[in-house]
Formats: sequence, structure tokens, C-alpha cells
Amino acid sequence: MAQKLFEQIALIGIGLIGSSLARAFRRDSPATTIVACARRPETLSVVRRLALADAITNDPAEAAEGADLVVIATPLSAYAKIGRRIRPMLKRGAIVTDVGSVKEAVIQDLQPHLPAGVHFVPGHPVAGTEHSGPESGFAELFRDRWCILTPPPGAAPEPVAEVRRMWERFGMRVVTMSPVHHDKVVAMTSHLPHLIAYTIVGTATSLEESLKSEVIRFSASGFRDFTRIAASDPVMWRDIFLNNRDAVLEILQRFSEDLTALQRAIRWQEGDKLQDLFTRTRATRRSIIEARQA
Amino acid sequence: MAQKLFEQIALIGIGLIGSSLARAFRRDSPATTIVACARRPETLSVVRRLALADAITNDPAEAAEGADLVVIATPLSAYAKIGRRIRPMLKRGAIVTDVGSVKEAVIQDLQPHLPAGVHFVPGHPVAGTEHSGPESGFAELFRDRWCILTPPPGAAPEPVAEVRRMWERFGMRVVTMSPVHHDKVVAMTSHLPHLIAYTIVGTATSLEESLKSEVIRFSASGFRDFTRIAASDPVMWRDIFLNNRDAVLEILQRFSEDLTALQRAIRWQEGDKLQDLFTRTRATRRSIIEARQA
Repeated sequence: MAQKLFEQIALIGIGLIGSSLARAFRRDSPATTIVACARRPETLSVVRRLALADAITNDPAEAAEGADLVVIATPLSAYAKIGRRIRPMLKRGAIVTDVGSVKEAVIQDLQPHLPAGVHFVPGHPVAGTEHSGPESGFAELFRDRWCILTPPPGAAPEPVAEVRRMWERFGMRVVTMSPVHHDKVVAMTSHLPHLIAYTIVGTATSLEESLKSEVIRFSASGFRDFTRIAASDPVMWRDIFLNNRDAVLEILQRFSEDLTALQRAIRWQEGDKLQDLFTRTRATRRSIIEARQA
Repeated sequence: MAQKLFEQIALIGIGLIGSSLARAFRRDSPATTIVACARRPETLSVVRRLALADAITNDPAEAAEGADLVVIATPLSAYAKIGRRIRPMLKRGAIVTDVGSVKEAVIQDLQPHLPAGVHFVPGHPVAGTEHSGPESGFAELFRDRWCILTPPPGAAPEPVAEVRRMWERFGMRVVTMSPVHHDKVVAMTSHLPHLIAYTIVGTATSLEESLKSEVIRFSASGFRDFTRIAASDPVMWRDIFLNNRDAVLEILQRFSEDLTALQRAIRWQEGDKLQDLFTRTRATRRSIIEARQA
């Protein structure tokens, strides 16, 4: 049996990521005590039915009491309130981490609430599916995916190493970077793609009825991939865009300029420009396959 | 053994679609004589090595001679020239069809070249992958996918029925519609998604080096789906955008307006608007799954 990862953990928020984490602990560190916290009674009853935790509660403070590791895995808009609630209950030496897709805003929301002697290790396991809720989770979600940690300057090394060890145990490749840099990278790799997918599916949904039904019927040729992405959790994604506003707007501006240039090339029948771009993007795909992400 | 589909067919252009069609004929109508035509010697040598045809040529006229069915499966920009070349060799009663992703412009390019007594049945098997060339083809490509036929007004019913039978034999569900309506539907379901995917991958490719390498590294979270689409054949897609210009520009305009509205909602932190849209797009995904396309 591999070494126990933590004595007791609190999972605050137990959707796709939180419940996958619970499953991974059950599999790889079964002696760890798991306390799960969710706001909605229905969520807690699923957690109970699936036996994902040793104790359940709807109170973040109760969950955090006595925990060696507190993992916040709720939509980003809940962070500040959770910080205020758990503050008095955090034990000295506890580690607080999270799984949020935005880091700078989140650190600003949470850090002021954490007392001295509590270690804060913001994290982002870059993993997910378009499904949400505790029933959608699975322990293998993290396998071979990246996890980005953004420890604040001067963070104690040992708590960072403990969080790293946890994600590595669950199969992730862990890197550290600054919160600002993280937010720019994911604005491009994840937030802009989701924004575009939501938009294009929205555009299709607004079509005249005669066209719309056929768009759904013939969706196989490109559009369907977008609908998968655009099925992701609405509240989670609302919070991501609100909290990573500046990086998203900056990259969206670049995208809009590029799209306008392409639109102009189509209008003026500039075939060479189109072909050049399409040849370059093919090469980018190849780089990604070579980077073993495909 | 099922009935032979045609005595002799000419496949003009033998990339992903053409070679998949050759394979499907080999499997389901092995007595049909296949003449394959490609411009590049390398393509022809692959066709020979894979035994995809009974005869090969680089001359469309030679391929069309004596064929009961001529299938044009080249990039759209080659259609007019092919029409001129094959015209004198088409036998009376022959059927000419194609597999192009745009129909109105293509009909304008090809129809003037087709002599009386030759039947024109424009078609679009809505199937494909991001791979191209004769080695990428496979007979199952067409299984359970849609094929759209756009026969001209007054077309004789029997040739249309023969082309329909062929695609149905290969597993496709066949519908007919007008070329104009076809072009609008695919502008939304296929051409706009490809344009967007090409743009977003282009935007990523233009990033500062420090960001770009990490975008490739962390591409798993949404962006990777776009790179797959943006790896599609550059010449084929150049021709699609040039030939479906009006429908693409019209739908692109709608998309841009919708994107600007979303951009504004992010800038002004209008969370409800974001959440509303994201909830609606999730429902669209559900419709698509229910339409058995997912």
C-alpha cells in the first residue's frame, strides 16, 4: 500500500473535479478521511449514495475543521464567502488549495481570509469533461494531464511539495508558474475556445426555424465538436469569464482582428492568404501532436 | 452478392472521399470497374499500391470515357476545367455527380459543360476527417452519415435514384434539397466552424514565443479540438470559402455580432447574460444528442 497522502481532507464543492478527487483518494489513499461539503441537499445525497466521503455537510466551516488539506472546488464566485466561513476553523499548518481555472482573481478573493500558519497553494488541474456534478466524476480524470500550481512568492516549500505529490499520485504532470502567466495561457487554450464555442452554438440557436432544425440534423461536420464544449457547466463558465476578464478580453481582441482579416480575404477572394493560413494551422496541429497532447 | 451498382465508374480526384468511395465499391460492388484519375503521380502510385482501381490515369477525359457514373471528388476550383475536359468523352445516359461541400457555385461551374443526354446529380456526402489523401480513406467513412443531393429542377428521377441507391448501399442517409438551402445549412454547420477553428489556431500561432510554447503544452482544455479541425486540407478549404462566399459572409456577420455582445457582457460583468446563453447552448447540445448525431 502506498503511503497515505493526508490524514483528513475537506472537499468543498463536489462536482466533476471534487468527486473525481474523492474517487482518486479512495483508490490511492484509502486511509485518508474525506469530509465532503456541498450546498445542495441533492448533491450531498449523491455523495452519500456513491460513498464518496466519510462525512458530509453543507457547512464549509464544519468541513474544514481538523482538515490537513482543504480543497476548494466550487465555482469561483463562492471563494470569498468560503474563505470567510472556514477561516476560524482552519488548524495551524493546514494547507488550503483549490482547483479553479483562474488564479489571480481567486488568490485576491481567498488569501486575505487565510490566517498566519495556514499554507495557501493555489492550483489548477487542467482536466475536465463537458459533464458536471458528482455522478460525472471518475478517478482516471487526472491521468497524464497537466496540473498548474501558482504558489505565492515566499510560499513554504513543503506544503507546495505535498500538493504536488498528491496530484502526481493521481497521474498528473505538475508545473508551477505565476498566477498572471497562468491566466494568460488558459485564456488562450481554454477560455477563448469555450467563449467561441458558446457563441457559435448561440448563433446557430438563433437561426430561423427552417434552417435551425437542419443545422441540428447535419451537425456532424464540425459544428458538433463545438456543441460538446458549449455544454459545459454554465455557472462555472460564467465565473471564469468574470474572473479572468482582462486576459480573455485581450486574447479575444486578437482573435477578432484575425477573424476580420480572414473575412476580408474571403470577401476579396484572396485565395493565397487563406491557403497560407490553413497550411500554418496544420503545422500547429502537428506540433501539438508531437507535444503528446493529442 | 448484392446487385452491382454500376458497370464502370470514373473517380476523378482520389483523396479522402474518392479513395473511401473506391474502397466502398470494392467491398459492396466488387464487379464494378473503377477508373481512378489524379493529377499527381505520387497519388496515382498510392492508388496502384493499394489496388483501389482497375485502371489509373492523370487525364479526366480518359477516365470518363465509357463510364456509367463519373464522380468528381477534387477541390472545387478544378471543376470547370474537368467539365471542359470530360465533355467530349461522356457517353449518352452517363451520370455525373460530385462530392463537393458547396453546391450552387459548383453547379454553375459544371452544368454548362454537360451535353444533353448526360444526367447531372450534384451531391455532398457529409463525411470526412481532418486527414487527407488516398491513404486516409476507409469504406466505413460514410456509415450512418448524411448525404445531401441537390438535383436541378426537372432532373430525370431515375439517375437521382441510382445515385441515392449508391450512397445508401454505403450506409448513408440521403436527403435532397435545393443548392441554395444546402449552402446555407453547411455554412453554419461546417464552414463557419472551420473558419473559426482556423482563426483561433492562427491567433495562437501568432502569440509571443513564451506564451506559444505553453499554449501547445496545455492545449488539452478546449483548444485541441480546434486544432484537429484546423488540420483539414488547406486547398480544399480555400476553395470552399471562395465558392460559398455569400453564405459564409452572412453567417460570419451574425457570429461576429453575437461575439461582440458576449464581449460586452464580459467587459461590463453582466453575469446573468453569460449564464443565460450558456444554459441555452447546453440545451442545443441536448437536441443534437437526441437527433442521434452525437
